[in-house]
Amino acid sequence: MAKDLTTREKDYAQWYQDLVTKADLAEHSDVRGCMVIKPYGYAIWENMRDVLDRMFKATGHVNAYFPLFVPKSFLEKEEGHAEGFAKECAVVTHYRLKNDPDNPGKLMVDPESKLEEELIVRPTSEAIIWNTYRGWIQSYRDLPLLINQWANVVRWEMRTRLFLRTTEFLWQEGHTAHSTKAEAIEETERMLHVYADFVENYMGVPVIKGIKTASERFAGAEETYCIEALMQDGKALQAGTSHFLGQNFAKAFDVQFANKEGKLEYVWATSWGVSTRLMGALVMSHSDDNGLVLPPRLAPTQVVIVPIYRTDEERARIAERVAEIEKELAMRGIRVKFDNRDTHRPGWKFAEYELRGVPLRIGIGPKDLEANQVELARRDTLTKGTVSQIGLADHIEKLLHEIQHNLFAQAEARRTASSHYVNTWDEFNAALDKGGFVYAHWDGTAETEQKIKEKTKATIRCIPLNNPQEAGQCILTGNASVQRVVFARAY
Amino acid sequence: MAKDLTTREKDYAQWYQDLVTKADLAEHSDVRGCMVIKPYGYAIWENMRDVLDRMFKATGHVNAYFPLFVPKSFLEKEEGHAEGFAKECAVVTHYRLKNDPDNPGKLMVDPESKLEEELIVRPTSEAIIWNTYRGWIQSYRDLPLLINQWANVVRWEMRTRLFLRTTEFLWQEGHTAHSTKAEAIEETERMLHVYADFVENYMGVPVIKGIKTASERFAGAEETYCIEALMQDGKALQAGTSHFLGQNFAKAFDVQFANKEGKLEYVWATSWGVSTRLMGALVMSHSDDNGLVLPPRLAPTQVVIVPIYRTDEERARIAERVAEIEKELAMRGIRVKFDNRDTHRPGWKFAEYELRGVPLRIGIGPKDLEANQVELARRDTLTKGTVSQIGLADHIEKLLHEIQHNLFAQAEARRTASSHYVNTWDEFNAALDKGGFVYAHWDGTAETEQKIKEKTKATIRCIPLNNPQEAGQCILTGNASVQRVVFARAY
Repeated sequence: MAKDLTTREKDYAQWYQDLVTKADLAEHSDVRGCMVIKPYGYAIWENMRDVLDRMFKATGHVNAYFPLFVPKSFLEKEEGHAEGFAKECAVVTHYRLKNDPDNPGKLMVDPESKLEEELIVRPTSEAIIWNTYRGWIQSYRDLPLLINQWANVVRWEMRTRLFLRTTEFLWQEGHTAHSTKAEAIEETERMLHVYADFVENYMGVPVIKGIKTASERFAGAEETYCIEALMQDGKALQAGTSHFLGQNFAKAFDVQFANKEGKLEYVWATSWGVSTRLMGALVMSHSDDNGLVLPPRLAPTQVVIVPIYRTDEERARIAERVAEIEKELAMRGIRVKFDNRDTHRPGWKFAEYELRGVPLRIGIGPKDLEANQVELARRDTLTKGTVSQIGLADHIEKLLHEIQHNLFAQAEARRTASSHYVNTWDEFNAALDKGGFVYAHWDGTAETEQKIKEKTKATIRCIPLNNPQEAGQCILTGNASVQRVVFARAY
Repeated sequence: MAKDLTTREKDYAQWYQDLVTKADLAEHSDVRGCMVIKPYGYAIWENMRDVLDRMFKATGHVNAYFPLFVPKSFLEKEEGHAEGFAKECAVVTHYRLKNDPDNPGKLMVDPESKLEEELIVRPTSEAIIWNTYRGWIQSYRDLPLLINQWANVVRWEMRTRLFLRTTEFLWQEGHTAHSTKAEAIEETERMLHVYADFVENYMGVPVIKGIKTASERFAGAEETYCIEALMQDGKALQAGTSHFLGQNFAKAFDVQFANKEGKLEYVWATSWGVSTRLMGALVMSHSDDNGLVLPPRLAPTQVVIVPIYRTDEERARIAERVAEIEKELAMRGIRVKFDNRDTHRPGWKFAEYELRGVPLRIGIGPKDLEANQVELARRDTLTKGTVSQIGLADHIEKLLHEIQHNLFAQAEARRTASSHYVNTWDEFNAALDKGGFVYAHWDGTAETEQKIKEKTKATIRCIPLNNPQEAGQCILTGNASVQRVVFARAY
């Protein structure tokens, strides 16, 4: 039935890997660390991208496209950025191949095509974009500049996992320029809220909004905001980040504007991004041992209709009725698919769409035609029942809504059950072993943070926005603390 | 007014370059050969992409994503392909940078990070995709496989021109797999017709559909179909290609399927693509010495409304009325923009939107409010007049339609005027110097084709589909010929 998925209990990591490949979302390619995003996985990503793109445009952003390559010297300009990014990356050193004279049919790199300056395949685009913005910004009238890019990026990874960590991945990166610090911070926070809205209301995944500690900040940022989600195995996953970059990149790339008084000032910057990593979060938040469970708002197919027949005549009669049902559903904007293939049996199809996480399945046979009913199965609860064809579209619309909310509610309940408030080192370790978010006091030093990480593999996921202030003692050092922060083991 | 555009007559190439940069479509980046596609240019590309994507999906295709990198050995596998593509390309040889011990603050390539096998930044994806398809295709039930990819590709170019020839460009590439030769050829032709439909009915650019001669074929193809457009300067531009690849890639990558009889056969393939080069074709087809002229179906803004006022009170009254007009237009799906900025004067705005090619401009002042009218200006004809606000949305909808058709008709008339039928070498050269498509007899040999190219810089753009068969003599050799082919100097 479930196409031999490993169960979550047996081996969560293997379950994830099985699911991603068997549900046709993605697979490892023969290029080290790079994945192939298969059509079904890409269709989900397209839905995510389209929703996010609308949200970005609704908040005043426009798209543009910047070069794939970053000259090495550009990466050197912003010190913190260089330290963080210019390490594990793909380096282009030559621009020509030629026939290998010693090996007929083989190619070799032409040594005469060596580049004067190496090009780095972008690991992120701050450097190339701020080098460009220098030419675009002269006056306060040119600000704010609110630009987003959908692109591929490359970070050389030694250990990869489909969607969660790959050498090449797809993402969007917003890069904005502002005339004041306050406006840039407002933008940074606005985009964090846009991400949270998307992840909660479309992906059905509750998140904590917060800021990173200094040691977890984006390289080159003054402040990194993040949203943190909790997976079913109790590990955290950073689902999106929004960075206040201060004037660091403006200074590194000499981007100044004349203010209203005609005086030159450095520009204030933000950047923010989410990636195909969200696909991993989506899979791990809702799916079960039978396969994917997709939230209706992102499911490529929201309703699949499977005919159950013995004769061609039955098949034709069913198809005729289904055409009407399809039309009614499509008119309401519901994404419906009629799988009328005669190469596969209904049972095979049921298992297939269960594996692929289609939210609702309609089964319809000759008896259903007579009784003017259908069989309707919910993927999230695995329940099914018979419902009338009268008012079916209404019913389905309501159910899709209910499933969307149910998935969020379930994920939220799991998160609540896995949120632990602890006060001692022993409680802290016990809570980490149970898995989940652990709210604990920390003395605020990078040194303690590092020690906790070494001892437990747990990191501070964030300091929540509007965090309640509360006197306490650091779980490791016992030193004074003013607030609890969120620890977890993380992806 | 026209922001100092060079005129077409004075220097067509400079006019193009001026236009692309001044209308904010794109600019050269500091990375050799790579462009930055600016927001306005990208918005046009997004419209193109969205229309094409819908057309691909309507013909049964789905999107997917394959790795950016192609291992060198993959490129070697299909001999013709290697010969054509594995030459001028970006080669990744290392995967790490490190701090340069001799130059504090500088980075250097870590010599210890040399890759065992070099990776090529994809110049096209046949190799990587067919290597993947081997795992996806076992039986005739897995066919056809109809996949498209939207991606960036890199071909190292020595001389670049914005959109027309850049080292990195954006494109889509379809890669399909079929069980029979006939079906693959049908697919190749179907996609050629989709491209022609798009270029003619959305871009407003008439094309000749045809096939390439053997020497102009895609590297690895058995047959290359193309659409050829004519620019205002009389040069041809290849606007899209669709390739029948035979079993070449299936054999190179060992992709076989079990047919209905259980016998193994090699798969038949096609590939087809259009790129950001289409942006160049769009610009050069319709624009004039005042700036861009965009066809309404692809224009990011179809109607711009510019208020003309002296006092704040007038401005407020106009804005109130415009809000209603905007709403009426938006309800019909018309992309409308109200430029109510008080930082720029109406005259400046008029010139700006003329430069940006917005199809229709509405001017509205206090007198227009009183008379219940607006001033309406057409970008294509540069005519303007006063029209009533009653029925305005209807009128505009009709006008946008008319502009769309007028642009095509104008381009077609120019092409007709620039299509020459010649019978002698002298006539041939005279026609080429006038510019345009030259229909002439050719003896069918690659040798003659090459000689003509060397002597005149003209290439055979294509042999038109359903080409009339007509006995004649080759313009160069005088040898027998059965049909005229289309020559031109080309981009």
